[in-house]
Amino acid sequence: MPREAEGAAHAVEGLPLNPSRVWARYWIESAFPLEEAAASLAGEQSSGTFVQVPGETAALKQRYGARVEALREVETVDAPSLPGAALPKGIPQPRWRRAILDVSWPLDNMGPSLPNLLATVAGNLFELRQFSGLRLLDLGLPAAFAEANPGPAFGVAGTRRLAGVMEGALIGTIIKPSVGLTPEETAALALTLAKAGIHFLKDDELQADGPHCPFRQRVDAVMGALRAHADATGRLPMYAFNLTGEVDQMRRCHDHVLAAGGSCVMVSLHSVGLTGLLALRRHAQLPIHAHRNGWGLFSRSPHIGLSYLAWQKLWRVAGADHMHVNGLQNKFCEADESVIASARGCLRPLFAPPLPACTVMPVFSSGQTVRQAHPTYAALGSTDLIFAAGGGLVGHPAGAGAGVRAMQAAWDAAIAGIPLEVQAERVPELQQALAEFAA
Amino acid sequence: MPREAEGAAHAVEGLPLNPSRVWARYWIESAFPLEEAAASLAGEQSSGTFVQVPGETAALKQRYGARVEALREVETVDAPSLPGAALPKGIPQPRWRRAILDVSWPLDNMGPSLPNLLATVAGNLFELRQFSGLRLLDLGLPAAFAEANPGPAFGVAGTRRLAGVMEGALIGTIIKPSVGLTPEETAALALTLAKAGIHFLKDDELQADGPHCPFRQRVDAVMGALRAHADATGRLPMYAFNLTGEVDQMRRCHDHVLAAGGSCVMVSLHSVGLTGLLALRRHAQLPIHAHRNGWGLFSRSPHIGLSYLAWQKLWRVAGADHMHVNGLQNKFCEADESVIASARGCLRPLFAPPLPACTVMPVFSSGQTVRQAHPTYAALGSTDLIFAAGGGLVGHPAGAGAGVRAMQAAWDAAIAGIPLEVQAERVPELQQALAEFAA
Repeated sequence: MPREAEGAAHAVEGLPLNPSRVWARYWIESAFPLEEAAASLAGEQSSGTFVQVPGETAALKQRYGARVEALREVETVDAPSLPGAALPKGIPQPRWRRAILDVSWPLDNMGPSLPNLLATVAGNLFELRQFSGLRLLDLGLPAAFAEANPGPAFGVAGTRRLAGVMEGALIGTIIKPSVGLTPEETAALALTLAKAGIHFLKDDELQADGPHCPFRQRVDAVMGALRAHADATGRLPMYAFNLTGEVDQMRRCHDHVLAAGGSCVMVSLHSVGLTGLLALRRHAQLPIHAHRNGWGLFSRSPHIGLSYLAWQKLWRVAGADHMHVNGLQNKFCEADESVIASARGCLRPLFAPPLPACTVMPVFSSGQTVRQAHPTYAALGSTDLIFAAGGGLVGHPAGAGAGVRAMQAAWDAAIAGIPLEVQAERVPELQQALAEFAA
Repeated sequence: MPREAEGAAHAVEGLPLNPSRVWARYWIESAFPLEEAAASLAGEQSSGTFVQVPGETAALKQRYGARVEALREVETVDAPSLPGAALPKGIPQPRWRRAILDVSWPLDNMGPSLPNLLATVAGNLFELRQFSGLRLLDLGLPAAFAEANPGPAFGVAGTRRLAGVMEGALIGTIIKPSVGLTPEETAALALTLAKAGIHFLKDDELQADGPHCPFRQRVDAVMGALRAHADATGRLPMYAFNLTGEVDQMRRCHDHVLAAGGSCVMVSLHSVGLTGLLALRRHAQLPIHAHRNGWGLFSRSPHIGLSYLAWQKLWRVAGADHMHVNGLQNKFCEADESVIASARGCLRPLFAPPLPACTVMPVFSSGQTVRQAHPTYAALGSTDLIFAAGGGLVGHPAGAGAGVRAMQAAWDAAIAGIPLEVQAERVPELQQALAEFAA
């Protein structure tokens, strides 16, 4: 199965970090001889096309052609997984073979440019007629990418410093309802959550700069409330304001957050693209909270798309500081082991010293309640994470403030090795949360 | 079947253009009661979340909630198309029902912002557990999007004017080999093609600004050759230079092309994102040739993704002038009727006068040879298109120049209603091309 193949790719500890070549690993399915299918992909994505052209000399191919580095058949199936693929001629009863394919390209083909890397490793190959299934599983990037691209400016340590949370998970929430609150209503809710000790708040990805809650007014109202709270208590929670939009607009919004004393901005990655994120990152003086909405399109089919392991590397090199990884027992379709593999990926260095590791804070989100603290900590073995519960915190029967206290108590218990039910006997808000959010 | 559903959605002539609401049409598959599944999508993508929260009042829902506008069951299947979906409780033998779902949102939720529109209509919904299949089929955008976004500056008429081709298809080619030629070799090939009468040339999407063929040197060499040709003949073919990259880099590259007398720039849409394209468009004084590499990831599975009909609207409103639509009998997996539906979509107005129609030039490409001129013209019923053959033209046995003459002869015949074989008797280069590129 492709998902297992993904796990297998993961297990071999990533691809070689060759100084002069980009590596990519794919899961493929084809009715053609595998070597032939692999060669067609390598050709199409480098010097070749569907016919031989005069300029494609042996010397040129040798220097600029992509190379099939490894090809390992994993299984055979009786029917193609996706429609549209061609059949090899002269084979009356075709079988579809699945394989793990490693391909490498000379760095010179695209240079250390992330947008052009994407066109090479995830461009016109998903449609090739030789394949009835194709997924990009992993990437190995030369050091030049770390040198030419900004990477995360804050990552785990910078986020902890700005949020004032030096240990433990960052307990976070999403302002809910997703849309519809005025700037003043948003600020009032943020203040309630701040008073209850929340570490991190964020806009929903559906909330950006609509006329009912304009970005600037929201920032002014929220930061007014949070700064007053910080003046009184010394604690300023981090609020990720969603500034997804056009480049100049994002830069202006960022500057407004900075001037208002804010400490984080949020952006929807698929909405702005790699070029949009790079433009924001090169301007930004605040951590960038990267939202992955739309990710299901890339991952939902086992037979086409990208693995999170490959995908998150692109955004980390570009400069995201926090990356969404879904959550355990989430409201979406993803299995728990996949969520944890994604979070581990975010915390694993991309480059070796003295190059930056580009590690980022994984963000657990989607249907999260007090019930997921223990399994999340047990599975990840780290508290370097943002645990963002929206409805599961704001929807606490005794109010959002009680929601924060319940969540903090759950995480305290998880870290201390105290069972959730034992902790609930001591903390009434946790007891109420357990009753409200059934297993 | 989903593909048929897509055709059906198309047949009803698009969604209403409501002045204050965004409409989206989906193909869905769910084991849940369809009304329940539809309501969960509408809720998640507007004011709601997985639990009721205190702030989501009836008044707020009424004003900001997404609305299920229509829901029409089309068929039932025995097994889920995609893994991971939940099953409704208490149903021992579930069935999966497929339906066409129309949802609308108040424009105020996201404003006329394309990046935020994407997060709303194609964000966190592909992963919802209620669905074992989900595709975005079409979009209906309020006039505010035409007013707030630049749209194509050149489109069909502006491209014809700059290319100096007032009638007939624009015969185009892609510089091949895709990567590996030096700037001087690229310029020499471009000149050969110009001398043979080519209308349009483009870089391959794998060729951007690598060290072996840097962007500026390529522009200087190519435009030097093409300008000298234009001085002698009065004919300057349009060359789309691939400037895919970061925002400031793209702006500088654009200015370099403009200063060198070039008339087109090219960009890989998925590499730069909507935000990247908007930044380029707001700066550009040249037509933008939009490459869709990576599109297979969005379209290859019948059960997840986007239809081209919905997808191309986003990029047209953002400002693309030429949009790739694949080609008939292509080297990829797409069926001919899908290719033609895409091309027709590009030529159909997005908004009614006095708003701009945002029509764009469809680009036929991928494994194209002289054999596709007749069926393309017959199916589209228009010559408002760029017909870009790479290997099928550059790979002509008598050289690229002969390739251009053969292709022009094929198109002349198609428009004049002369059978290809009859034309081949008069034009030896066409005869050779037919022998080389077998049916």
